[in-house]
This record gives sequence, structure tokens and C-alpha cells, in this order.
Amino acid sequence: MIQELIEIVGRENFTDQLEELVPYSYDASMNVHRPDAAVWPESTEQVSAIVKFANEHHIAVVPRGAGTSLSGGVVPIRGGIIIDLSKMNRILEISIEDRFARVQAGVVCDGLNRELGKSGFIFPPDPASSSVATIGGNVATNAGGIKGAKYGTTRDYVLGLEVVLPTGEVMRTGSYTMKCVSGYDLARLFIGAEGTLGVITEVTLKINPVPRHAMTAVATYARLEDAGKAISQTMTSGILPSVMEIMDKVTLKSIRENTDIDLPEAEAMILAETDGFTWEEVEAQMEVILAILGKNGPVEIKTARDEKDRLNLWRARKSAYATLARVSSSFTLDDVTVPISRIPELLVGIQEISKKYDIVVATFGHAGDGNLHPQILFDEYDADQVERMKKVEEEIFRLAIGLKGTLSGEHGIGLSKAAYMTLEHDPVEMALMRLIKKTLDPNNIMNPGKRALD
Amino acid sequence: MIQELIEIVGRENFTDQLEELVPYSYDASMNVHRPDAAVWPESTEQVSAIVKFANEHHIAVVPRGAGTSLSGGVVPIRGGIIIDLSKMNRILEISIEDRFARVQAGVVCDGLNRELGKSGFIFPPDPASSSVATIGGNVATNAGGIKGAKYGTTRDYVLGLEVVLPTGEVMRTGSYTMKCVSGYDLARLFIGAEGTLGVITEVTLKINPVPRHAMTAVATYARLEDAGKAISQTMTSGILPSVMEIMDKVTLKSIRENTDIDLPEAEAMILAETDGFTWEEVEAQMEVILAILGKNGPVEIKTARDEKDRLNLWRARKSAYATLARVSSSFTLDDVTVPISRIPELLVGIQEISKKYDIVVATFGHAGDGNLHPQILFDEYDADQVERMKKVEEEIFRLAIGLKGTLSGEHGIGLSKAAYMTLEHDPVEMALMRLIKKTLDPNNIMNPGKRALD
Repeated sequence: MIQELIEIVGRENFTDQLEELVPYSYDASMNVHRPDAAVWPESTEQVSAIVKFANEHHIAVVPRGAGTSLSGGVVPIRGGIIIDLSKMNRILEISIEDRFARVQAGVVCDGLNRELGKSGFIFPPDPASSSVATIGGNVATNAGGIKGAKYGTTRDYVLGLEVVLPTGEVMRTGSYTMKCVSGYDLARLFIGAEGTLGVITEVTLKINPVPRHAMTAVATYARLEDAGKAISQTMTSGILPSVMEIMDKVTLKSIRENTDIDLPEAEAMILAETDGFTWEEVEAQMEVILAILGKNGPVEIKTARDEKDRLNLWRARKSAYATLARVSSSFTLDDVTVPISRIPELLVGIQEISKKYDIVVATFGHAGDGNLHPQILFDEYDADQVERMKKVEEEIFRLAIGLKGTLSGEHGIGLSKAAYMTLEHDPVEMALMRLIKKTLDPNNIMNPGKRALD
Repeated sequence: MIQELIEIVGRENFTDQLEELVPYSYDASMNVHRPDAAVWPESTEQVSAIVKFANEHHIAVVPRGAGTSLSGGVVPIRGGIIIDLSKMNRILEISIEDRFARVQAGVVCDGLNRELGKSGFIFPPDPASSSVATIGGNVATNAGGIKGAKYGTTRDYVLGLEVVLPTGEVMRTGSYTMKCVSGYDLARLFIGAEGTLGVITEVTLKINPVPRHAMTAVATYARLEDAGKAISQTMTSGILPSVMEIMDKVTLKSIRENTDIDLPEAEAMILAETDGFTWEEVEAQMEVILAILGKNGPVEIKTARDEKDRLNLWRARKSAYATLARVSSSFTLDDVTVPISRIPELLVGIQEISKKYDIVVATFGHAGDGNLHPQILFDEYDADQVERMKKVEEEIFRLAIGLKGTLSGEHGIGLSKAAYMTLEHDPVEMALMRLIKKTLDPNNIMNPGKRALD
């Protein structure tokens, strides 16, 4: 195996050294498993040769971008070969007049957006990890982010893909055009497949003009149901906020106690933004939101127009994850998603589960699209806490699904949620997912052990 | 067969009478073939039983909405059973605060939008057939329309589906939430599959607030390249027009000669719209467009803000298809799509092909997303013209694909373009499409004979 892989990628692009494999045993979740080798291919041809070799020898292959998965998506639970795509990081083509960018899978999201920004354009999905996360990873997980309510998720921007199939064959699918209905939408079969059907090597993305102006408002509420009403009323008001975030009282308390950010005691905080081509558009939409925020009994409302003041209002929301990560030795960050009007029920339910098991859960996330992030705090060296954390997580999943929601809005299923797939998906749907996996990847080499597919 | 089908749907919902089957032999294309029977199921359970029966007996099944396909998508080329979904026409649920509508497949697009309009919301895709076309048909073809450049196509709005698989099993997939990455994106496998993988019985759609204001501009150009420059400059200007249409000189001549619409002699006409929540937003975007239209040497520019004047500017564009259909005994309407900057080359190339074969081709369509509609005029009772028309069509397909375009932006492949699939899709991609078809539908009962899949 070693010789064959070295022949394909060169000695400098291969490792089976323990110290180099350790980082590839992890992602941003709690899952750990070491691969047998890692390679850094520099071309699609090399990826193809690696996969062909792995398929012939029934060796597991796990494609990896920046490894920011929160669900164990890139942890090689069956060992095998990590294909690190970070050296395939070239922007191949930007055509502003044709509204697309064609990039290798290893291009970093923010890097692409810096380049597009020079022409006033953007690839809108904005996962929190965008400063390191790769486009290939975005596509493999159908990454979302903060602006999903108005701008959708990665799948809405993928025009075409180059994919190395589990046989090693290279397939190009999709188009360079805004519309294409020729044949099956194979691209979207690989988008969000978490590397279980092939290795994405190249992506053609639709791009948007950057909105010229934006305005931010923050409102805190002493009663959660008032915040819930404000969200529902905003979403039915006829405007589409570009951002509509929520933080619960546990999150707010942690930020208040662990940072110098000035926050009132409150049950919930909403952060909303509007954007547009003109200030009038931005302000008129914000007026609608401010009227709604105001009439639902807020403790406090703040607004900001210029960049510096806006970033200041964002400080609490941006520090939520890191603050919570710092106050706890271990944590699990989930991403259950519910219909927008069920957010208050989800938040109340999570707090009841938290009390029942005496495990702290702080929840924040994207109220505008119903995608919340319960961050479950525990100590991984305390077996009893680990046991209770697992129960908390399972009950949160059951709660979200009971509210007509889903296990995962943007982090993926990976390893962490594989055991819960059948809570959400009935036997007919599970059978079709498994049939597709088995048909495309009969030797089960592509990121095996994930998503309850094998 | 007759007895079994009558038992499933009832005598009143079954026919094998010639006079009732004749309309099911056609769609809006030139393709013709009679089915053996037609049924009007009233529930998913009935559809399931029909498909199960058909699968056991290897009988072809063709799901049909309003039959507005321009590609032979619903013509039962292998006979069998037409499943007409027009009786499954209930809007099951509209949740404005959760931003979704759940409907049966037979609901008519405009009917849904009238209902949503009461709350100020809309399902944005707007195919020209929306007054009769069904949501099921929209989803099966991934329908587009005039506003694709800004608002995307049907696939961008589908949250979840209920599908009867070729086995007769009923599968629910997707979500009621704005974001969902749990498992494979099976919904998008059926979106745009033209009924070749199953029967779509229910659809959950994301809905948008209706933009409050819009403004329209029309500009004519004596030189095609000037119109092309105006389009490219608009698309790179940082604004996203909600509409950007183009008509070529042949289309304009036909409208001028066959209607009372006052049009200057010109090589091309552009119709553009901007929309927004405020008039300021609409006007500021329109100013950018007007400046671009103006600096490229137009013959004439007209603008309109109020509904009546706007509809007046739309008259020429809206009458293009019908006027052309009236001046010719037969016609084929295609929907090749190219990267936006290649539109002038496509238009010039189409005119060269038209001259070469002495067949009139009028082209109009959606410049903002590169999706053009060459309408090829001929006499179907003149064998020589038919022969030349076919050559014209094939050369247009080759031209579009050579310009990095696609056979079909919104009408689908169906029968009409099946023979050209391999021009666009290489053997690896074709093999995967066929593998998926064979895996899901091993008896090839679902809309067989389409898309070069069997």
C-alpha cells in the first residue's frame, strides 16, 4: 500500500507517521480514530488513482478539507487513507459576467470571497468556520451559516461539480449556466453526502453581488415567549431579514460572566440585520423589525449602522461558542432545526431536558431559519456526566423531530448523529439511502461507518 | 388490467376510451403516442396501488400534471397508464410563520400563488404556463421562468416531497425546515427527473414575501453586440435585476407585423425589471440599468412604474411565443442555456444556422440567466422542412454546448432532446444516470423511453 500511494502522489505527499496522523484522527467533534495513512494529492488525476487503488484493495478512503466538521464527518472510524485536499487550492476561473467561480475543492471559503470581493461579488454561505473551511467541505456538508434565511445554503449556489467516483472514474456534472435541467441532478446527490459517495475535486459556484449596505439591531427580552413572538411576527411581516439570531439565557449568562460585554439579565436576545442596495431599503426593512421588536416588551433595543458599531453589537453572538467552550472542559455542539414558529418550544424543552439530567445546555443560533445550536457542557472524564450528556442529546433530537424538525440543519450526520438517523427517516427512506450508497460504492470504501448507511 | 385499475380508483376515475385517451397522447411538444389507459387517482394510496400493480405487470406508467411539457416529457411513448394527478389538487397547509406551503401535486401554480398572495407571500418560480401548470409538474421538471436570475428555479424552493417509488412504496423525504442536511438529498434526485424515478404526490415548498414594488424598462438596439454589452455590464454592475429578457430581430419583426404593438426596427430588445421593498431600492437599481442601457447606443428606451404601463411594456415580450406560433403551421420551442456573456454568440450563431437551412428561427428568452428560447418555424407536412428543422435543432444544440451551455435550461429533455443527451454528458455521467434509473426502477416502468436512460 505504501509503495503504491507514494508512486501516485510522491514521497513528499504521503505519510504513515504517527505524529502526522494524529491530527487526522480528529475533527471539531468528540470523535477520534486514527487513519493508516494520509495523502496530499495535487491533482484530480492523483485523487482518481488513489481511489481506484483503494477500491481494488477495499481500503477505506476519507476525503478531508479543513477538518472543521462538528459531527465526526471526517474522522476515519474504519482507518484507511485520509485524502487531504488542502493542496488542491487553486481558484481556476472567476467569470463575473457569467456569475460563476470555478475552484478546486481545497480553496478556503474566505479566500474565495476575498478574491470575489475585489469585483463586488460574494459566495453567500457563511459557516462560522469560513476562515479555514474549504469549498469542498462546504459542498460535502451543504454548509449553511448565519444568512441562510435570506440567502439559502451551499446547495443553492452549486452549478457544477467534478467528482471522483468510488471506482476512481472522474465525473463532471452540472453546468456553467444559471439554469440546467439536462438529466438527473447528480451534483445535488454529492452535495451534503459527507464524502460517502465520492471525492469532490472541483466546484463551479454561482456568485451574487455583495449587498452594499446593512444595519444591525439587538433586542433583549425578559420573557422567552416575547422573543418567540417577535421572531414569528418578523418572518410574517413581508420582509426577509438577512440575519435573525437568537441566544438563550444560559448563553447570555455565560457571556455576561466570562467576558466584559455589557449585557442585561434576560431570557433571550435577538440580533437582526437587514441589507440592500440602498440605505432606504435597509432602513425601511429595519423599521418594520424595530416596530415588532419594540411592541413585544423588550428590556432593551440597540441599533447600529456603521461597521464598527455593528461589530460591537455582534460581539455577544460571536463570542457565544468560544465562551461556552472555555467554561466547560468538554462540549457537544448540535444543530437541530425546527419550523420557525416552534423555536420557543424547542428552547423551553431543551431547558427542561437540561434540568432533568442536571447538565448545562446553552442554546443559540439562527432563528430566521429555525436552525439552533444547543451546546451541551460536560466533563468527558466523568463517566456519569458523559452518560447524562448522551441522554440529553438524544432527548433534544427526539424533541426537535417531534416539533417537525430535523437532526441537523448544517453540521451533518457524520458519526455523532448516525445512531439517530432512524428517528427522523422512516424505513422506506433509509432503504433508498442505503441502496444508493451500495449502488455507487459497492465495496463501501468512501467514508464508511457514517450516517447509518452500512 | 382494466378490472384491477377500476378496483383501485373507481370506475369514474378510469378510462380506456379512445376519445378520452387522445388528449393524453400529446403535450405542448410535437411528440404523439397514445396510452392504453388513464386514471385520475384521488389519494397517494391510490397512486401507490396503481404503481405497485404496474410494477408487478411491467406496465409503463406516466405521471402527468397539466401536460404543458414542451419536450414530450409526458407523452407515453411506450403506451401504458397515464396517471393524471389533477384531482389531487388540495393545498394541505400554509404556514406563513414557518415559511412553507404543503400541497398535493395537482395544485395549479397560479392557484397556490393566489392563496399565498392573501398573506403577501409567493412561490417565486414563474413558468409561462403557470396559469395551468401544476406544482407536481414544476417539481418534476425543475421549472424555471422569467425571474430565475434573481430568484432561482423550483429546486431552490422544495423543502420536502412525498414520492411513490417504482415499487409502489410511499417515501417522504426532506423537511419542513429551511435547512436540513440529514442524509442524502433524495428530494433533489426526483426534482427534475421528469417522472422517470417515481410519482411526486405531495410537495412542501419554501415561500418568500412578495416584493412590494417593481419597475420596468425596455430598450431596443440596432446592433446585437450593443445589447449583449448592456446585458453583460448589467450583470457585473452589482445589482441583480429581477427580470432581464431579450428578443432578437426575427421575434421583433414577427410581433411588429402581426400585432398592433408599436416597435422600432431593431436587432434586439431588452426588457429589464428591478424590485424591492421600497421605491428607492427599485429606482436606484433601475438607474444603474438605465445608465448601462443608455451608454450602449439604444434606438429607444422606455420605462414604467405603475402596473398598467408596466404591462404595456411587457406586451411585446408576452406576445412573442403566441405570435410566432400563429404565423407558422408548426414550430419547435427550445431552451438552450449558455453562460450569460455568450448570449450574443448564441444569437448570431442561431441566425447563421437559420440561413444555412433556410428555416426561420426566432429567439427570445431570459438573458439574465442565459436561458434562450429559439422558436423554430416550419411546416410539419413538408418532409423537407421537417428534415431541415431537425438539422437546425441539432446544430443549435451543438452550438450551445460548444459555448459551455446546456441542452435545456427549463423545459426538460423528455423525448425531444433524448437523442442529444450524449452531446452534453460524457460516458461516465451517462453511466451513472442510467445506473440510478436501473437501480430505482429495475423494471423500467416509470415514464420509459425518455432521456436516453434505457
